[in-house]
Amino acid sequence: MTNKTNRGLFFEDYVIGQVIEHPVPRTITSGERAFYHAAYPSRHALYSSDLFAKDCGLPKSPLTELAAFHIVFGKTVPDISLNAVANLGYAEGLFLKPVFVGDTLRSVSEIIGLKQNSSGKTGVVWVRTSGFNQDQEKVIEYVRWVMVRKRNLGAKEVKTHVPDLKNHLNVEDLIVPDGLTFENYNFDLAGERYQLSDYDIGEKINHVDAVTIEEAEHMMATRIWQNTAKVHFDKTQRDDLTRLVYGGHVISMARALSFNGLANAQLIAGINSGSHVNPCISGDTISAWSEVLDSAATSSPNVGAIRLRLVAVKQEHDELELYNADGTYKTNVLLDFDYWALIPI
Amino acid sequence: MTNKTNRGLFFEDYVIGQVIEHPVPRTITSGERAFYHAAYPSRHALYSSDLFAKDCGLPKSPLTELAAFHIVFGKTVPDISLNAVANLGYAEGLFLKPVFVGDTLRSVSEIIGLKQNSSGKTGVVWVRTSGFNQDQEKVIEYVRWVMVRKRNLGAKEVKTHVPDLKNHLNVEDLIVPDGLTFENYNFDLAGERYQLSDYDIGEKINHVDAVTIEEAEHMMATRIWQNTAKVHFDKTQRDDLTRLVYGGHVISMARALSFNGLANAQLIAGINSGSHVNPCISGDTISAWSEVLDSAATSSPNVGAIRLRLVAVKQEHDELELYNADGTYKTNVLLDFDYWALIPI
Amino acid sequence: MTNKTNRGLFFEDYVIGQVIEHPVPRTITSGERAFYHAAYPSRHALYSSDLFAKDCGLPKSPLTELAAFHIVFGKTVPDISLNAVANLGYAEGLFLKPVFVGDTLRSVSEIIGLKQNSSGKTGVVWVRTSGFNQDQEKVIEYVRWVMVRKRNLGAKEVKTHVPDLKNHLNVEDLIVPDGLTFENYNFDLAGERYQLSDYDIGEKINHVDAVTIEEAEHMMATRIWQNTAKVHFDKTQRDDLTRLVYGGHVISMARALSFNGLANAQLIAGINSGSHVNPCISGDTISAWSEVLDSAATSSPNVGAIRLRLVAVKQEHDELELYNADGTYKTNVLLDFDYWALIPI
Repeated sequence: MTNKTNRGLFFEDYVIGQVIEHPVPRTITSGERAFYHAAYPSRHALYSSDLFAKDCGLPKSPLTELAAFHIVFGKTVPDISLNAVANLGYAEGLFLKPVFVGDTLRSVSEIIGLKQNSSGKTGVVWVRTSGFNQDQEKVIEYVRWVMVRKRNLGAKEVKTHVPDLKNHLNVEDLIVPDGLTFENYNFDLAGERYQLSDYDIGEKINHVDAVTIEEAEHMMATRIWQNTAKVHFDKTQRDDLTRLVYGGHVISMARALSFNGLANAQLIAGINSGSHVNPCISGDTISAWSEVLDSAATSSPNVGAIRLRLVAVKQEHDELELYNADGTYKTNVLLDFDYWALIPI
Repeated sequence: MTNKTNRGLFFEDYVIGQVIEHPVPRTITSGERAFYHAAYPSRHALYSSDLFAKDCGLPKSPLTELAAFHIVFGKTVPDISLNAVANLGYAEGLFLKPVFVGDTLRSVSEIIGLKQNSSGKTGVVWVRTSGFNQDQEKVIEYVRWVMVRKRNLGAKEVKTHVPDLKNHLNVEDLIVPDGLTFENYNFDLAGERYQLSDYDIGEKINHVDAVTIEEAEHMMATRIWQNTAKVHFDKTQRDDLTRLVYGGHVISMARALSFNGLANAQLIAGINSGSHVNPCISGDTISAWSEVLDSAATSSPNVGAIRLRLVAVKQEHDELELYNADGTYKTNVLLDFDYWALIPI
Repeated sequence: MTNKTNRGLFFEDYVIGQVIEHPVPRTITSGERAFYHAAYPSRHALYSSDLFAKDCGLPKSPLTELAAFHIVFGKTVPDISLNAVANLGYAEGLFLKPVFVGDTLRSVSEIIGLKQNSSGKTGVVWVRTSGFNQDQEKVIEYVRWVMVRKRNLGAKEVKTHVPDLKNHLNVEDLIVPDGLTFENYNFDLAGERYQLSDYDIGEKINHVDAVTIEEAEHMMATRIWQNTAKVHFDKTQRDDLTRLVYGGHVISMARALSFNGLANAQLIAGINSGSHVNPCISGDTISAWSEVLDSAATSSPNVGAIRLRLVAVKQEHDELELYNADGTYKTNVLLDFDYWALIPI
C-alpha cells in the first residue's frame, strides 16, 4: 500500500503568507441552480426569474451568492479543514461580481493567521479565500478561521499571528453589481411590500416557517459543492454515529426561510461575521429569525443596504433571544450570522 | 418583534371576484426537468427525448404537464392554502400550451366560490388559477377548492356562492398543442404497442410497479416547485410528528407508474377532477391502477383522447376497487384522479 | 382487468441472436450532470470543468462515462433484468465516444449466450448492449450476464451457448477520444501530482473517504437513469423489507471515492469485468480501495492507460484484501470491478 491519498494538512504544515491553489475547478450549470431550489425553500425573486433579474438591470438571474460561496468554500476543505476540529468564524466576506450559469470557478487561499492553542494539540488557522471565474475576475472573497489538529504534538510552536480583521464591513466596502437598479422593482412579484425605510434598527423578525433536516438532503446539498469533509457523509466518523450537517447548509436554510419577512433583501453583498454556535444533525427542525442591525444608502440611487443578524435555531424558540442570562448562547441556537443585503430603498 | 411575515389568509379574507397575483415568478431550466426524473419513475418518451418530441411535431421535449402544474400550484400556496385544513378537489384543469425550458411562469388566481361550513370554524374557498408564461400566454388553468380556517370565529358569515363547475371536461374543451402529430409515432421507442383503439371503456390496468416514499424525496420534490405548505416540511406541525406528503407528489408518482400499461398516453390535456382521499406519509409504498372512462377523436387527425381514472393506493391493492360495500373509499386509496390524455389513434 | 403491463421476459423467452431495441430514448441535460455530483463525491476535473476539458483537447466537459453507462443500462432493465435473480457480471465494456449534454441516447441489446441452470428454475442470459447517440454513433458497448427466472418450469431446455468473452480488454482495444491530449495537463487544478509512471503494478491505494448510504439518495440516483428494477424502489419486494441498492450506484460511489489517490485517472476507457459480490443496503458505509493491475501507452503520445481493480467495501476494511483464506470473497466486499482509465503518461 502506498500513500498517495490526501489526508489533509495539519496545524504545523501552515505558514503565514502561504498561498494554496485549490484543485478542481467547476463549471456551473442550470442543474446546480435547480438543485439549490430543491434543497432550500429559496424564493427571492431575483434568483428565481430571469425576467425579474432583467427588470433589476442584470443580464439574467444569477446564482444565489450562497451557492457561489459553497462552491468556493467546498474546494478549500481538502486543504484547510480536513483535520479541523471546528469551524470558528467568518469575516470580511465580499461578493464582488454576480456568478452566472456557464461560469467556471476556482479557489485560492492565503494563510493570514496562526495561533497554537494552550493545549498544544491544536491551533487556529486564519485563511483568506478568493473565488475566481474563467476571466480571472475575483467574484468572492472571505476570511474564515478553523481549529486544526497538530500531526506531531512535539512540533515546534509557531509564532502567533492574529490577523487584524474588521469587526464588520462598512457600507462603503460593499460592491453593488454593475447595472443593478431597483427603479422598476415589482413588489407584487417579489412577494412583499417592505423596503429599506420600513425596517427599524433593532427590529426582530420571526420567519415563521421551519424545516426538519434529513440525512439525504444535507449530504446531497453538501456534496454537489464538492465539499469532502468526512463528518458530513460517513457516520462512522463520530462515536454517536451522527453525521454533522455542513454549517453552510444551515446558513442556506436560514437565509431561504428568511424570505418570509425579508423577501426584498434580494442580494447578499457582504458577510460580516458568522458562528456555528451548536451542531446540527438530521431530525433537527430548523427555523430562523432576523434582527435589523443597520441600514444605509449605497452608491446606487435606489439600492439600499440592510445589515441583518440571521439566527438559525432548532426546535422551540419563542423568545428570539440569542443568549442565556449568563451571556452564553442558548443551546437551541445553531447559527449567528451577520450580513449585508441589498434592498430597494 | 414586528409582523412582516406572511401567515396566510383566512376564510373571511376572501371575496368573490378577488384576483390575486401570486409572487415569485420562476424561470424553468433543464435542472428542474432532470430533477423530475430523479423524483419520479417518469418514462413517457415525449418528455424524455428531444428527438421523439420532434418526431411528434414539437420543437423539443416540453416540461411534463404535471411539473408545470406543480410550479403554478406552488405559487398559490402562500395566498390560498397556508391555513387550509384540506385540499378538497380539482376541476376544469386545462393545459393550453406546452411549457419549455427557458419559459418563466407566474400564477394568478380568482376567487370564484365561498361557503362557510356549518361548524362556523372553517369555510370552503373555490379558486380558479391560471399560469402565464413570459409572453403573457396562459399555459395552464384549473379550479381547486380548499377548506380554510377562519381567523376570527365571530366574523360575519359570507354569502354562499358555489360555482357551477363541469363534472368533467368534454373532448371539445381540450387543446391539442400546435403541430402535435402522431403520424410518425415510433411505438418501439415509446415502449408499448397499444393505441387508442386497443383500450376499452371500463378496462382497468394494474400498473404493477410500486415506490416506497422517503421524506427527503417528497420534501425536495415539493420544495423545487416553491410550495411552502408547512405540513410537508416541518414535523412539529402535526401531533404525530409525521410530515404529510404533498398531494401533487402522489399524482406525479402515480402518473409515472402508469407508464407501464399506458406508455402511449403521452400528454395530459385536461384534469376533470381529483381527490386526495387519504393522507400519504413517508414509508408508504405507492402503486397505481387506471380505469378507461372514455375515448374520443380530437381535431387533429391522428391524435386521440383517452379519459382515465388514475388511482394511487398504498400497500396491498389486489382488487382494483375504489369503494367499500357502503360506498366509502377504501382506506388504502390515496388518490382518485380523472384526466384526459392524448394518445395515438 | 387487461394485461397491457410489462412483467418482463423470462429465461425461455430469449433466443440466441435476438436483437432488442429498448424503448425510451433520453436527451441528456446539464440537470443530469449536476445531479451526478449531488449523488456522488465526484471530483475528476475533466468532468467538473469545461475549461479543464478544453485544455485536454475536448470541446467541453463530457458526461462521466459511468453516467452514460447508467443511462444505457437503465433502458435494458425492462427487457433484460426485470425477472433477474442476480446480475452476474460484466465484460468487454468499451467507451467509444464521449457523451455530451444535448446528446440523445438509446440502447440496443443482442442475446449472445444462454445456459439453463441445473435447478431447472433459472438460466443465465448473456447480452451485448450498445448505446447510440442521435447521430447513430455507438458511444458505449458492454456485455453483461444475468440469472433470469423461468416462467414455466416445464419449458423446453435451450441449447447451451456460452459466449467466448475476453478475460480483459487489451490496451489496443481501447479508444482514446478524438483530440484528447494531456500535453497541457494542469496537475495543480486536477488535485494530485501522480502520473502513470508513479504507479507500480500491484500497488494498492486505500481511498480513505467513506459514505453512508441513504434510501432517498440511491433511489433518486437510480431513477434518474430510468432504471425500473423493483427491488431498488419497493420495500415490499423482499421479505426483510430492505431495498437493494443498484449495483451501478456502488460502482459510481467507489469510482468517485477513488479520486483520492487516483485524481488523474480521468477517463474510463474500458470495463474488463465486474462483480457485485455482496448486496448493499441503506445504512451501509461504503469505502473503496484500488489495485494497479497493468499500465500501458496508448496511440496518443501523452495519454497512458492504467488498469485498475476498484473494490468497494462496507464498514471496516483495514487489510485491502478481497478473499478469505479459503478463496471466497470477504463478506464486507461489495464490488470487484476491473477497468482501464486514461491518465497522463
